[in-house]
Amino acid sequence: MTTADPTSPHPAWLPPAAFRAIGSRQTLVCGDGTLVETVRDEVARACARFGGTVQHSTGAATEPERTGVGARPYDLVLALRAAGSLPAGAAPAVEVGRELGPDRGGLDPEGFALARRDGVTVVLADAPAGLLYGLFEVVRLGAAAFDADRAVRVHSPALRLRLVSHWDNVDVHPVMGQVERGYAGGSIFWRDGAPIGDSDRIREYARLLAACGMNAMTVNNVNVHGTANRLLTDRLGDVAAIADLVRPYGIRVHLSVNFAAPVALDGLHTADPLDRDVRAWWARAAGRIYGTIPDFGGFMVKADSEGQPGPYRYGRTHADGANMLADALAPYGGVVHWRAFVYNHRQDWRDRSTDRARAAYDHFTPLDGRFRDNVIVQVKHGPMDFQTREPVSPVLAAMPGTRLAVEVQATQEYTGQQRHVCYLGPWWSEVLRFAPWGPGRPTVAAVVGGSSRDGDRTAPAGDDDRGVSAGGGLVVVSNVGADHYWTGHPLAQANLYAAGRLGWAPDLDPLAVLDEWIDLTFTPSATGDPDLLRGTLHALLDDSWRTYERYTAPLGVGFMVAPGHHYGPDVDGYEYSRWGTYHFADRDGVGVDRTRATGTGFTGQYPQPWADRYESLDTCPDELLLFFHHVPYQHVLHSGSTVIQHIYDTHFAGVEQVAEMVRRWERIGPAGLVGPALHARVTERLAEQLRSARQWCDTINTYFLRKSGVPDVRGRRIH
Amino acid sequence: MTTADPTSPHPAWLPPAAFRAIGSRQTLVCGDGTLVETVRDEVARACARFGGTVQHSTGAATEPERTGVGARPYDLVLALRAAGSLPAGAAPAVEVGRELGPDRGGLDPEGFALARRDGVTVVLADAPAGLLYGLFEVVRLGAAAFDADRAVRVHSPALRLRLVSHWDNVDVHPVMGQVERGYAGGSIFWRDGAPIGDSDRIREYARLLAACGMNAMTVNNVNVHGTANRLLTDRLGDVAAIADLVRPYGIRVHLSVNFAAPVALDGLHTADPLDRDVRAWWARAAGRIYGTIPDFGGFMVKADSEGQPGPYRYGRTHADGANMLADALAPYGGVVHWRAFVYNHRQDWRDRSTDRARAAYDHFTPLDGRFRDNVIVQVKHGPMDFQTREPVSPVLAAMPGTRLAVEVQATQEYTGQQRHVCYLGPWWSEVLRFAPWGPGRPTVAAVVGGSSRDGDRTAPAGDDDRGVSAGGGLVVVSNVGADHYWTGHPLAQANLYAAGRLGWAPDLDPLAVLDEWIDLTFTPSATGDPDLLRGTLHALLDDSWRTYERYTAPLGVGFMVAPGHHYGPDVDGYEYSRWGTYHFADRDGVGVDRTRATGTGFTGQYPQPWADRYESLDTCPDELLLFFHHVPYQHVLHSGSTVIQHIYDTHFAGVEQVAEMVRRWERIGPAGLVGPALHARVTERLAEQLRSARQWCDTINTYFLRKSGVPDVRGRRIH
Repeated sequence: MTTADPTSPHPAWLPPAAFRAIGSRQTLVCGDGTLVETVRDEVARACARFGGTVQHSTGAATEPERTGVGARPYDLVLALRAAGSLPAGAAPAVEVGRELGPDRGGLDPEGFALARRDGVTVVLADAPAGLLYGLFEVVRLGAAAFDADRAVRVHSPALRLRLVSHWDNVDVHPVMGQVERGYAGGSIFWRDGAPIGDSDRIREYARLLAACGMNAMTVNNVNVHGTANRLLTDRLGDVAAIADLVRPYGIRVHLSVNFAAPVALDGLHTADPLDRDVRAWWARAAGRIYGTIPDFGGFMVKADSEGQPGPYRYGRTHADGANMLADALAPYGGVVHWRAFVYNHRQDWRDRSTDRARAAYDHFTPLDGRFRDNVIVQVKHGPMDFQTREPVSPVLAAMPGTRLAVEVQATQEYTGQQRHVCYLGPWWSEVLRFAPWGPGRPTVAAVVGGSSRDGDRTAPAGDDDRGVSAGGGLVVVSNVGADHYWTGHPLAQANLYAAGRLGWAPDLDPLAVLDEWIDLTFTPSATGDPDLLRGTLHALLDDSWRTYERYTAPLGVGFMVAPGHHYGPDVDGYEYSRWGTYHFADRDGVGVDRTRATGTGFTGQYPQPWADRYESLDTCPDELLLFFHHVPYQHVLHSGSTVIQHIYDTHFAGVEQVAEMVRRWERIGPAGLVGPALHARVTERLAEQLRSARQWCDTINTYFLRKSGVPDVRGRRIH
Repeated sequence: MTTADPTSPHPAWLPPAAFRAIGSRQTLVCGDGTLVETVRDEVARACARFGGTVQHSTGAATEPERTGVGARPYDLVLALRAAGSLPAGAAPAVEVGRELGPDRGGLDPEGFALARRDGVTVVLADAPAGLLYGLFEVVRLGAAAFDADRAVRVHSPALRLRLVSHWDNVDVHPVMGQVERGYAGGSIFWRDGAPIGDSDRIREYARLLAACGMNAMTVNNVNVHGTANRLLTDRLGDVAAIADLVRPYGIRVHLSVNFAAPVALDGLHTADPLDRDVRAWWARAAGRIYGTIPDFGGFMVKADSEGQPGPYRYGRTHADGANMLADALAPYGGVVHWRAFVYNHRQDWRDRSTDRARAAYDHFTPLDGRFRDNVIVQVKHGPMDFQTREPVSPVLAAMPGTRLAVEVQATQEYTGQQRHVCYLGPWWSEVLRFAPWGPGRPTVAAVVGGSSRDGDRTAPAGDDDRGVSAGGGLVVVSNVGADHYWTGHPLAQANLYAAGRLGWAPDLDPLAVLDEWIDLTFTPSATGDPDLLRGTLHALLDDSWRTYERYTAPLGVGFMVAPGHHYGPDVDGYEYSRWGTYHFADRDGVGVDRTRATGTGFTGQYPQPWADRYESLDTCPDELLLFFHHVPYQHVLHSGSTVIQHIYDTHFAGVEQVAEMVRRWERIGPAGLVGPALHARVTERLAEQLRSARQWCDTINTYFLRKSGVPDVRGRRIH
């Protein structure tokens, strides 16, 4: 379908044109180390294309020789403050450095200061990673970085760990394929049990991640089976090869591991975390890994979850399990990401007393304070499973003595599988800004940034800083695959970009992030109308998550998807299953009673004010009504509409919005603004989105009309 | 789980003990040819075990030498009438032959006469196959064959072609696996694209088929892909190897072929059945096949069905397509099985005017009279797809100028997948005895036997008889796999046995057939109580199909199964899908209006009296009510119950019946009567059946309670 060059992937948000402003100027890079060399090489590549120059001073105290240009000063200086004295042409940088001054305290190891003074744009950092992130900030600013003067501004990431989790299988899984919940072709790492060996692509991926602010990745699925186990042992070289490729972009490699690896790999009779041999096995494994990959990040574990092995089997707690791995990694500064996604996946739907939403809280909060400092308990953003709408997980407000990470899903498992446009930035932004203890109190971002606990999560820079300070950061399930556009749907690139940016700065406006992504990604041709392009992309993306919500499961009730693959509607698909995801629709009403008064009591897992706000029909937000309450179809929402009429209205509206997206996209035409191949790919996906949205709309509306018998007050056709 | 010897399959209905009566006696076999040698070898094998003797006269006119026994007459004579004069010890056989006399007309080529006179049991046939079937009739009779005198009785098959259709894939299909809809392990023929090469097993299988009356098989899935295409060309040797193994048991091999094979295999630009090159290609293919397999049976084709290629693509009819293949096979006497399973599998559920039940009739009846004599149009027994309950397909009464076969499914796709006990003999018996034109008029068995057309479908015996006489016979989708018990569930063996027996004699009582199967299969130990065993097996099997019907989709509405794999309930699983299988349940009622008055008009495809009987609520049988009518939940059935109360009652009753089956099976104990491994296997499957039946019951009842709001009058727990 696409005529794009299949041999090189789409440049995403780093096309050559994004470096035009830098590449045409005179740049000085000062400092030592791999990441500084990356900065220099990035600038040099841009200069080779656009005619600028780059000088690199590796820390000698003398002025570097300048060649090829006159005596005029540098346009851009990117310098480590420890790199020694700067040349005369970089005088404004010296001033900025003085202004920052040692008395102001060290910069974050990933932070940087940015200013423009006397015609020189200055980026200063105390550690190489900061210089790299500073470079990409200048790239984002584009020509504006070289306009008027800018006061000094210090940038540092709000979340220390910003990790992309790949659910890539090493072997092909008989049901899940090469990438579990992957909608962008094969894996960029693995094929049929072996590395693909496409070094260029992995390097390019690391570059994209760094440019949006990510600093870590797992390279294999959290469900670990077959060959993937051996990444710990005889296939460790495959991991090291990836680590070597991504290291220059400040990306650390983590591994998903199987809790029963000692049994699976070496025939130990147990994986009991308190067993001496098991502990020794993991200690040896860690030693071996760090001997090969000195900056290895750590382990991610899905234990006692959906059939995966874990400590419960041995009568141990999740703290026992996680701490055992943490002890193995501690000597080397590694961390354990221990997933809180633990629930009874063999629930009897007839048992109304069990509520899957309660599970993570019930399993984990009793263990608060019992995890090692290098354990991160990784909590899905909602209590269920990456639905289009859920409340924020109460676990995030209930473990003050534990490092917590929040996990979001860029891969669109439940949000259109990269066939639907669904920009998730606004959703993640809501989650990160959510204040579990009420307005003015710490947000989820503060919790996972560590600042809700100690007031200042910033640790001093240092060699042994391996992210073991407080706060567990952000984990993003990757939406990337071997597809030419990386993400199947070209517009789904925006989700990965936004995840990185919101991890760095959770208070960013997600629509402003979208503007960044648009500016970087799309270079309007000379004949194109950039406002038309920007307007069209905003029209497609801005409200797309809420549009998707409108035509799918209503009012926070969730699921209603086809079992197994989760694409398309099946209202009762999970209603009589073992998965704990029910809506309880009958001829009178719909929704899950999770109140303390009459339901499962899940509302009681929240602190105030939410415990009461969710409990009461008067204060429960409309969009979460059916998550917390079972109500009659004629219940009147805060919006003034009845539940049943709201269902009809939003579903018809959602389809109409998709139809409008199709029209808007048609209007920019196949050529010119975005290139014919990309236009065609989006056109094809929009057609499928429209078909699927109609199927959702008609199925949901028909289902509820048949069940309720209440006609649409507007008399539209329901089947 | 089972401790049975994995190296040799279960003997099914041919354990050594089944030959005890024959093996301890003096037998004379007279005649020439492969099948006669098979008869001799079968008797010899029995004699080796039980101490009897066998003499074989190969047609010389002299008395064969007798060794090892005295001068007393034979106990059993199996003789071709053309085999020449019989020895003195076989005098009663001569008398029987005289009584049959040439003036009585030749026997059917597969027929035989059986009598017992003067202490000699006599089987006479005019062709070798008859002798083989006669032998197995004697096996069935057991000791009774050697009791009192028996008058001469001529046996001949009611249906000429009795074919087992294997949906075995040659390559493993990524979704369907090695055997499509197979529930008994892998294929007995193929594994991962190559023959398994288990000659013993294939020979044993042919023996089982012959012993129940089958005479043909396809060896590959009707969905033909990948390597299976090449069975026509460079992998033809694999087919010939199978043909060689099954030939001694009178089984002919047929092949499923892909209509687009000329394109797929040889790059022809078309598969147009009127294209000269295409016709020549198939003619060459047929020539090649018959050069290798002289008794090759023919082709089976699924064309223009569920995505398979076919003549529609070229603007041709099914008659064009089938006749083209028929012309290629005609010089060699081969037949084409052309499936009538053609419907729109991309239906829009919102379109109420399309009715999948109508499809086969609408596609095929206009072509009546236009098919070659060696085309058999193969019609699924019902208009939908092998449901637990459907009306008989009206196509079977609507093509008087066409040879028709009826297709039934022994593999339990929709009837419990060989985890549930579901003896299908009574269901097939109903179908075969159904009289489309009313009582006293021809039955379905007569239609597919050819006697509804010409009054006497029996063709004269002859060398060139290749089954091209009228009537298309029975096609049975196999339930057999590489499982030790052949069929996964040991009791599912009874289905294959019954299919063969009902193909031979459709008027047999299916419970009498069950008795045959029990007597042959189970040899009670000396300590066992045979009445307990027989009683238990009848308790489990007799009513098992109706029991299964009770706890699954009610009143003929069909489906309500989980999409894809079709195991377990999902009431709305296909309700908003493209498959045309809907129930239209809403808060007021349920069912499909297929009347002429207000519905899809499907009732009009039946001749009288059924056209009117199905049309009217007053006369439509209860068990098909929801297939033909949409009725309110409070509609009163002929049984006196309302529809909704019937649903509750039958579902609770069905579960209770399964619970009773479990108790009955427990009572016969793990040892003794059936052997511990078989007992354990059945115990395990019954536990799953009980779990699944409860899931069905609770899901269906809850679904309809939620929808109708009508409580169970007996106040039982519905969730």
